[in-house]
Amino acid sequence: MSEKKAYVNYGSCQCGCGCEGARDITGCRFSLSPMTDSYVDIILGAIKKVDTSKVWKMTDKLSTLYRGRRIHVLDGLKACFVQSYREGVHMTMGATISKGCPGDVDADAFLAEDDVRMNEPVLADAHFPVTCKISLYPMGVSNYMEYIASVVNRAIDMGVYAGSSHYVTILEGDVQDIFRYFEEATEYCGRELSHYIFEATLSVNSPTAE
Amino acid sequence: MSEKKAYVNYGSCQCGCGCEGARDITGCRFSLSPMTDSYVDIILGAIKKVDTSKVWKMTDKLSTLYRGRRIHVLDGLKACFVQSYREGVHMTMGATISKGCPGDVDADAFLAEDDVRMNEPVLADAHFPVTCKISLYPMGVSNYMEYIASVVNRAIDMGVYAGSSHYVTILEGDVQDIFRYFEEATEYCGRELSHYIFEATLSVNSPTAE
Repeated sequence: MSEKKAYVNYGSCQCGCGCEGARDITGCRFSLSPMTDSYVDIILGAIKKVDTSKVWKMTDKLSTLYRGRRIHVLDGLKACFVQSYREGVHMTMGATISKGCPGDVDADAFLAEDDVRMNEPVLADAHFPVTCKISLYPMGVSNYMEYIASVVNRAIDMGVYAGSSHYVTILEGDVQDIFRYFEEATEYCGRELSHYIFEATLSVNSPTAE
Repeated sequence: MSEKKAYVNYGSCQCGCGCEGARDITGCRFSLSPMTDSYVDIILGAIKKVDTSKVWKMTDKLSTLYRGRRIHVLDGLKACFVQSYREGVHMTMGATISKGCPGDVDADAFLAEDDVRMNEPVLADAHFPVTCKISLYPMGVSNYMEYIASVVNRAIDMGVYAGSSHYVTILEGDVQDIFRYFEEATEYCGRELSHYIFEATLSVNSPTAE
């Protein structure tokens, strides 16, 4: 008695092998976690307020996903985060920003042609402190630590670096500076790397002392 | 006028270069997010209940970190997750399991010699459904998609695979089966890869319909 299982097969794909069909698509999968009884209203309220006309979007049980051009994806991510901020409410947001996965397909994305950020005008005046951990995973290259060092040093240059810990780099700064850093870091990664994953967890209003 | 900045320099480290000082240390950095006003009590209560006598531990503003032998690190992770479960309370746990980072040091770990899991006896009877997303990042190898496929296919074999989506694989199953899968997946990765990162986000009691 044999059973045929529908296994996946990514084995023929390699970094830079040319079978990527999604070279220009940056994606971001993120989850908001407001630690309050009213988390549903906060999350759904924020997601509704975001202008997503320049990204492809999907929300499932675990996260919301934006795909499209890098600047518009980051604009949407920042909008969701800022719109869900509540004074005194502890919240984290886990975000996976990625580009160039060999298993990706040239679909589920909307590549708007212009550079006008749809949400930035209403976000520009938001200011609150953010603590953040980031990890960069440059795929398919043996010298990946060099790229990680470049991205960490960019945080030092921009004044948001707060230290290194096991598996992550810690950032601290105003929400505007943190997202400005995400812009620069992902611009660098998208230019220099065939496939990268940039993981970030942002935290506000943590009750934990330093 | 010149300013000297304390930049990081990971550039001389490469995967398998031999400068790793932490070959046997598996680490897990995780964050619990119970979405309720009583999140502090739940998190601190759970962390306190875990027997951490066989791992090195640290809690900072962003996460808790266990380091040591793989089985004891996973035992502690499972204990924290199970102990913080509350009927009807939506909670997520983000966990980064890693081994072999070239920038890691042979410190901040406790390598217990025996295989007796300290928490498992009180966890074995816990049963509740978990939805989970996972991503594996095998570092420093060009054929990394093969390893990812192996790990995803193991989930299919074990009956916890629920589908693939952009950037992640979705798992669904009883908490015991999900953690049994983590055991097998990280055993495989630790054996086959010089440096890997296994990211998982577990979710319980989500109000979002399928």
